[in-house]
Amino acid sequence: MWHGRTDRIQRPPIAAINALAADLRAEGRDLIDLGQAILGLPPPPAAMEAVRSYLETSEPHGYSPDPGLPEVRDRVAGFLRRHKGLAAAEASELLLTCGANQAFVNALLALTQPGDEIVLFGPYYFDHLFAIELGSCVPVEVGLRHDAGRFVLDWSALEAALTERTRCVVLVSPANPAGMVFRPDEVAKLCELCRRRGLWLISDETYDLLTFPPARHQSPATMGILDEVVVLGSFSKTFALAGWRIGYLYGPAELVEETIKVQDAIVVCAPVPAQLAAAAAVAHADEYCAHAVAELERRRDALLEGLAAVPQLTPIVPDGATFVMAAIDAPVSSVDFATTILREAGVVTVPGSAFGPSGEGYLRLSFGNQRGARLREAAGRLRTALC
Amino acid sequence: MWHGRTDRIQRPPIAAINALAADLRAEGRDLIDLGQAILGLPPPPAAMEAVRSYLETSEPHGYSPDPGLPEVRDRVAGFLRRHKGLAAAEASELLLTCGANQAFVNALLALTQPGDEIVLFGPYYFDHLFAIELGSCVPVEVGLRHDAGRFVLDWSALEAALTERTRCVVLVSPANPAGMVFRPDEVAKLCELCRRRGLWLISDETYDLLTFPPARHQSPATMGILDEVVVLGSFSKTFALAGWRIGYLYGPAELVEETIKVQDAIVVCAPVPAQLAAAAAVAHADEYCAHAVAELERRRDALLEGLAAVPQLTPIVPDGATFVMAAIDAPVSSVDFATTILREAGVVTVPGSAFGPSGEGYLRLSFGNQRGARLREAAGRLRTALC
Repeated sequence: MWHGRTDRIQRPPIAAINALAADLRAEGRDLIDLGQAILGLPPPPAAMEAVRSYLETSEPHGYSPDPGLPEVRDRVAGFLRRHKGLAAAEASELLLTCGANQAFVNALLALTQPGDEIVLFGPYYFDHLFAIELGSCVPVEVGLRHDAGRFVLDWSALEAALTERTRCVVLVSPANPAGMVFRPDEVAKLCELCRRRGLWLISDETYDLLTFPPARHQSPATMGILDEVVVLGSFSKTFALAGWRIGYLYGPAELVEETIKVQDAIVVCAPVPAQLAAAAAVAHADEYCAHAVAELERRRDALLEGLAAVPQLTPIVPDGATFVMAAIDAPVSSVDFATTILREAGVVTVPGSAFGPSGEGYLRLSFGNQRGARLREAAGRLRTALC
Repeated sequence: MWHGRTDRIQRPPIAAINALAADLRAEGRDLIDLGQAILGLPPPPAAMEAVRSYLETSEPHGYSPDPGLPEVRDRVAGFLRRHKGLAAAEASELLLTCGANQAFVNALLALTQPGDEIVLFGPYYFDHLFAIELGSCVPVEVGLRHDAGRFVLDWSALEAALTERTRCVVLVSPANPAGMVFRPDEVAKLCELCRRRGLWLISDETYDLLTFPPARHQSPATMGILDEVVVLGSFSKTFALAGWRIGYLYGPAELVEETIKVQDAIVVCAPVPAQLAAAAAVAHADEYCAHAVAELERRRDALLEGLAAVPQLTPIVPDGATFVMAAIDAPVSSVDFATTILREAGVVTVPGSAFGPSGEGYLRLSFGNQRGARLREAAGRLRTALC
């Protein structure tokens, strides 16, 4: 129709569900939004204070250097050293982006030629699929194995999927949509496999600091097994700065240099006030994340408690992030199920098929943006509508 | 080396020149920066006020809908109706982006398949070339014709360059780097040619309101000749919001819908505070742009006056935007010339070859970010160094 490559892409499913939700809201319906995976807390006050100072400068509000302001890169590198176990992280290995999605696009375009195959573990984060399609690469879905209430890597399926054209493997941990943190022994084995096969590992660590003890995320870049690791990070979730569009890419300095070409073509630089907000936020990582995790844990537990009374949904208990993936016990597609509960219970969720074929039969319910009482109400509404 | 498609791209030339400039500054040199094309004025106070209010909201700082906040799209559509002659512009035809570069990427990926040919008029804006390369399309440079101190479209060269694979023609007016506004009769003829050949016209209008009377920019989308027009706009220059990363794409609603897929994959949405800043800024377009144009005209004239005493540079008088393109009368490449004057005169410029083969033999000197006295000093330094 457009003759464009977007023909191969379905519209973002969150957008489609949100459009229906907007129609219902316009009719006066009270909806509970468990759709978008945001952290419903205000950002750290110091981050807002940093922007306030920027508003008052008399200097022109010009571009920063493509990879980011030098002092912000330094501060974020310090954050990686202290909070992510990347003991030798340097500013030169870091590029600030308009969120982790843009970091993925930068890495992908710098690492691939059209036609290269990119492994996604399913259920996968759909924006990765879109970016791969737009970059004229070939997405290869390798389904995760459901094992004792968790998703785990399926080694024989992975080995079988690799070809001469495979260039990268994408790992999202804590996982979106499944919420689990892959075990360190799984990640180490994946690093070894990548090294053996000459593959790059793109490690999306958007939810890295939002894990529920005893679960803890360890970046493959800290394991000393594989040099060809690109870490994608975000301040959207960890510091509740989603609207500001700020994240980063961390990897070998030579790759970072290469991604600057992509950066310049797409956005020139990350928004300068967002860079300043992030630099101020990371100085408060300990207390802010401790508060956020405690709050998220309460919200997760409220949702899980409520869902225990909904027989059609069997949740996977997440190790981190801001959502619960639940298996649907009903003879309908996940899109039909999500549409039904939106219409009948007024609860916004994301159908699992949005996350690829492996996500069919599941529903993703985000608890990050709702307080406990509202989450219990959502579960109650689901129970009433479904029973 | 990276096996990636970025191998085909030279690092952004502004970045290379800026790196040398940073080294010289570190040595204590006083440099005059005529490199980056920014408007060196503070943004409209109302824009900053809008952000200040956002900082104080207790709501989570979440994403906006992919195309932008509905009320911001409405306000920007009103701005297009009132200030750009797009009498019927609607919010549904508008998508807010992280600057005009990202708008270009969105349009390009929604309109093309890999291998499609895209016409750029040379000297061209280099980030367009990069985006075309990254999108696995084929850039086709059609040189502009130098005619009586202006660049004009070369119709026979254009006709000769079109093939079965040509998909889009990119027009930048006011032009970067040449600074002229293409004449309405040229643009109308280009629209007719696109219609006849079934091509899309991507019209980058970044500097639209920054023109020096009697020059005035008229968008091809107002001419009623061609429906297949995508307008790219920016608030970076017109409202001095470069650091905030905010621009837009305007086109047929069906195309805008299609570009949402690209938007979601790359950035999800434009930064929310930047959207609010832009919505507030456009309400003050008349007075702000009148002030900016008067100031820019003074700066342009100061630079041109100074350059009149530099025999090695013959400037093209710009109709708009924030830079002067000058022909180099010296037996060296534009890169060597720019490097020499950076080292010897401490003046940062951009070599014309950064804008493609047609730019060789020229230098771009931006006057937007320097006051008159400093521009005269820059010209004086050039004279001393070169004579």
